[in-house]
Amino acid sequence: MSDVDFTPVHPEPLLIVISGPSGVGKDAVIQHMKERHLDFHFVITLASRLPRPGEVDGVDYFFVTKEQFEAMVQADEFLEYAWVYGEYKGIPKSQVRQAVASGKDIVMRLDVQGAATIRKICPQALSIFLTVEKEEDLVSHLYKRKSETPEVLKVRIETARQELRQVKEFDYFVINRENQIDNTVEIIMAIIRAEHQRTQPRRVSL
Amino acid sequence: MSDVDFTPVHPEPLLIVISGPSGVGKDAVIQHMKERHLDFHFVITLASRLPRPGEVDGVDYFFVTKEQFEAMVQADEFLEYAWVYGEYKGIPKSQVRQAVASGKDIVMRLDVQGAATIRKICPQALSIFLTVEKEEDLVSHLYKRKSETPEVLKVRIETARQELRQVKEFDYFVINRENQIDNTVEIIMAIIRAEHQRTQPRRVSL
Repeated sequence: MSDVDFTPVHPEPLLIVISGPSGVGKDAVIQHMKERHLDFHFVITLASRLPRPGEVDGVDYFFVTKEQFEAMVQADEFLEYAWVYGEYKGIPKSQVRQAVASGKDIVMRLDVQGAATIRKICPQALSIFLTVEKEEDLVSHLYKRKSETPEVLKVRIETARQELRQVKEFDYFVINRENQIDNTVEIIMAIIRAEHQRTQPRRVSL
Repeated sequence: MSDVDFTPVHPEPLLIVISGPSGVGKDAVIQHMKERHLDFHFVITLASRLPRPGEVDGVDYFFVTKEQFEAMVQADEFLEYAWVYGEYKGIPKSQVRQAVASGKDIVMRLDVQGAATIRKICPQALSIFLTVEKEEDLVSHLYKRKSETPEVLKVRIETARQELRQVKEFDYFVINRENQIDNTVEIIMAIIRAEHQRTQPRRVSL
């Protein structure tokens, strides 16, 4: 027998960016992925705000004050960060180092602005854009969210409309239909599974 | 509301090429796909040989004589054809016209040589390479197939070894493990599902 290594059995870890406009359901999708698929390393975002009802510090986000966040920015501790809707959100480099060390596929939840930054830093990232079937679906999601002031809500709706048009910048889109989150997660899992079968794997470097 | 069409809900039909070396289990995989997934249009290959035990004319292949095949070649009726292992195999253009008219995803089973031809004719085809974990698995499969003369068997084994090295020419690879054909088909289905979520769809023209 020849001993040439011909089979590309090479489970390169992927850097998976789950993004989409405000109100599309990113948090719920990530929550479902966490509950059902333990084989990922989920990167936890830092946010300079208080938890919303049901959110747990260190699980959904790390919550810090604006001052703490700015001190970390000064110390160059972020892979990416942004000021959006009156709060900072960012991914600390320490989180990413942990993720890479895990050897697992890395999942990052990012708003559309953050996703654009990560694509620049790491063009080999696998980017998935969560979207809606009709623009009205998104607006009604945002209205239902009671935690925001009318001013913030107005900004979010306008931003979300703009962001929906950026879908083509991503590798894949998935429509997150009302009450069909299981289906959304299944499609995301199919995408990830397929990506591991590429003969030309994405080689992530961070 | 704006009425810009932002959602890429565009189920472009795919041209899916299932290929791989002789003995890897292409026929069995296609058979499983036919039984469980009715939403494809399967293109039936023409072969200039007699059916093997269990093969049905018009289902597994269309079986014709060498003379009939050569007459069709003369009449330019093939999208691609090749002389392999002492027989002709080819895809008639009429089959492809039917497939395109169906509006469904098209599945073609092709040997590695035929897949290379189709990739040239249609670079947007989605190509999946079935492979084995170890080269020996393939050789033992070929030995078990009792329908061939020792000379044909020898040629097939040598060809299969060469063909295993062409995996990188394909978009995806799937390892078809012994007794795990359900798993093989599941991975193929995940790949097809994922491909329908691309923001830049493959636009097949034939």
